[in-house]
Amino acid sequence: MNRPHILVNGDATGHVAAGERGLSYGDGLFETLAVRNGRPQLWERHMARLQAGCERLSITPVAPALLADEAGQVTGSAARAVLKITVTRGAGARGYRPHADAVPTRIVQCLPDPDYPPACARTGIAVRLCAMRMGHNPRLAGIKHLNRLEQVLARGEWNDDNIHEGLLADQAGNLVAGTMSNVFLVQGDTLLTPGLVRCGVAGVMRELLLELAGRAGIASAVRDVALEELQYADEMFVCNSLIGIWPVSRCAGRACAVGEVTRTLQRLLGEALENER
Amino acid sequence: MNRPHILVNGDATGHVAAGERGLSYGDGLFETLAVRNGRPQLWERHMARLQAGCERLSITPVAPALLADEAGQVTGSAARAVLKITVTRGAGARGYRPHADAVPTRIVQCLPDPDYPPACARTGIAVRLCAMRMGHNPRLAGIKHLNRLEQVLARGEWNDDNIHEGLLADQAGNLVAGTMSNVFLVQGDTLLTPGLVRCGVAGVMRELLLELAGRAGIASAVRDVALEELQYADEMFVCNSLIGIWPVSRCAGRACAVGEVTRTLQRLLGEALENER
Repeated sequence: MNRPHILVNGDATGHVAAGERGLSYGDGLFETLAVRNGRPQLWERHMARLQAGCERLSITPVAPALLADEAGQVTGSAARAVLKITVTRGAGARGYRPHADAVPTRIVQCLPDPDYPPACARTGIAVRLCAMRMGHNPRLAGIKHLNRLEQVLARGEWNDDNIHEGLLADQAGNLVAGTMSNVFLVQGDTLLTPGLVRCGVAGVMRELLLELAGRAGIASAVRDVALEELQYADEMFVCNSLIGIWPVSRCAGRACAVGEVTRTLQRLLGEALENER
Repeated sequence: MNRPHILVNGDATGHVAAGERGLSYGDGLFETLAVRNGRPQLWERHMARLQAGCERLSITPVAPALLADEAGQVTGSAARAVLKITVTRGAGARGYRPHADAVPTRIVQCLPDPDYPPACARTGIAVRLCAMRMGHNPRLAGIKHLNRLEQVLARGEWNDDNIHEGLLADQAGNLVAGTMSNVFLVQGDTLLTPGLVRCGVAGVMRELLLELAGRAGIASAVRDVALEELQYADEMFVCNSLIGIWPVSRCAGRACAVGEVTRTLQRLLGEALENER
């Protein structure tokens, strides 16, 4: 029997009701996980962030065991794939008002591996600065909700396939993140990443890297980062659950060194993911 | 034959694909129209705003004639109903990148009239101030896109059915709008409404009222409005396509007069909608 590639509330239909609040208002959350040899990486961390997002939006959480079961059904023993989990407030009457008795919709989906060129992680990528500035909303900052028009518009700014990511600043001119990644700078021997308390998504990979750095004795700072600080960075990289760490070798036309802290973190990350098995 | 209540790309399924970008990222727009005696009110204006939204998001516009045909199919000769039209960038691969060849999804839906108490328009409503502050993003301001978590969270702040609307300020403390409406103040003999260049939805009803005021010789100003100005307003009302004009008789516990400018605009609006037929 063929395994389903998508389950919507456990059904292999691939459809959601058009009255779904995830569609009407972006009223929900999602997680994107790397699957390696049938196993979703960093499962516990992704479930923790999803839970935190549900709490923030007052969406009834879905039991992780149920999601794990459905994830297993869609991923099977796939060697390399992407697992996407979406949880919304569910179907509902028209109108913004969220009802306490809403029954969440869960969408568990197995997608093809994006097949990124290995050179991205090895020799680094070119990034650009996006013109789009992100709005501040502390109530929505950090969580991975479904209101992603800022990312869509930012990603729509370029078509050059040699540029792998665009960096975004907020309305105040502080660096926030890449369109699909978090960003780290290295200044001297200190790792630096934006605080994400007013906008941006606090990535699972970002959190893991901060922990790995801490355990390895690499100093790190999580704070407001002015866009200008990009010019003085000794190293720079972007990260997410699918790409791991991509060093930045070119930022807005300027060459960047791929340095020792980035390489150390790549090694530590590889070991951590290996040990997870 | 029963008429369908919903058409998704012309099909009466009531379902959309789970890979729909409207669901994944809120990558789309919507319009909500009042239907009276089988006729959607202010059709041309709603179509113009939808078109402007598509242009802003680089979504291929849908021909208004096609939407009109499908609207007719779902509304039939309904005496009073709501017509909701959603246009998204369509189904697409994972990832924020918007593709130029994306085929938009259209959802045309007839919903029951909300059956608001007539007293709301006659004697006015009580409004509250929401704690949620809206983020600035000029690229998204004005259009009625599907990223509506701010409205959802704001509307989730209260459960008291005696309060009919909540007013929202932005991160800078300027008045923006109601959760589902635009807001007007009257100061002396001048009509005043927020500019909505950094956040908020520029309502079709708001636009019509500004025109009606102009033609009637009522001075109006569209500008930044500090939250504090609510205290000095001589009159106040909220508006949208479904409610028309609701005078505000109580704002954050303080009584407000329902005055002459509001009543004049209610009368002019009634005439304009009557003449539209």
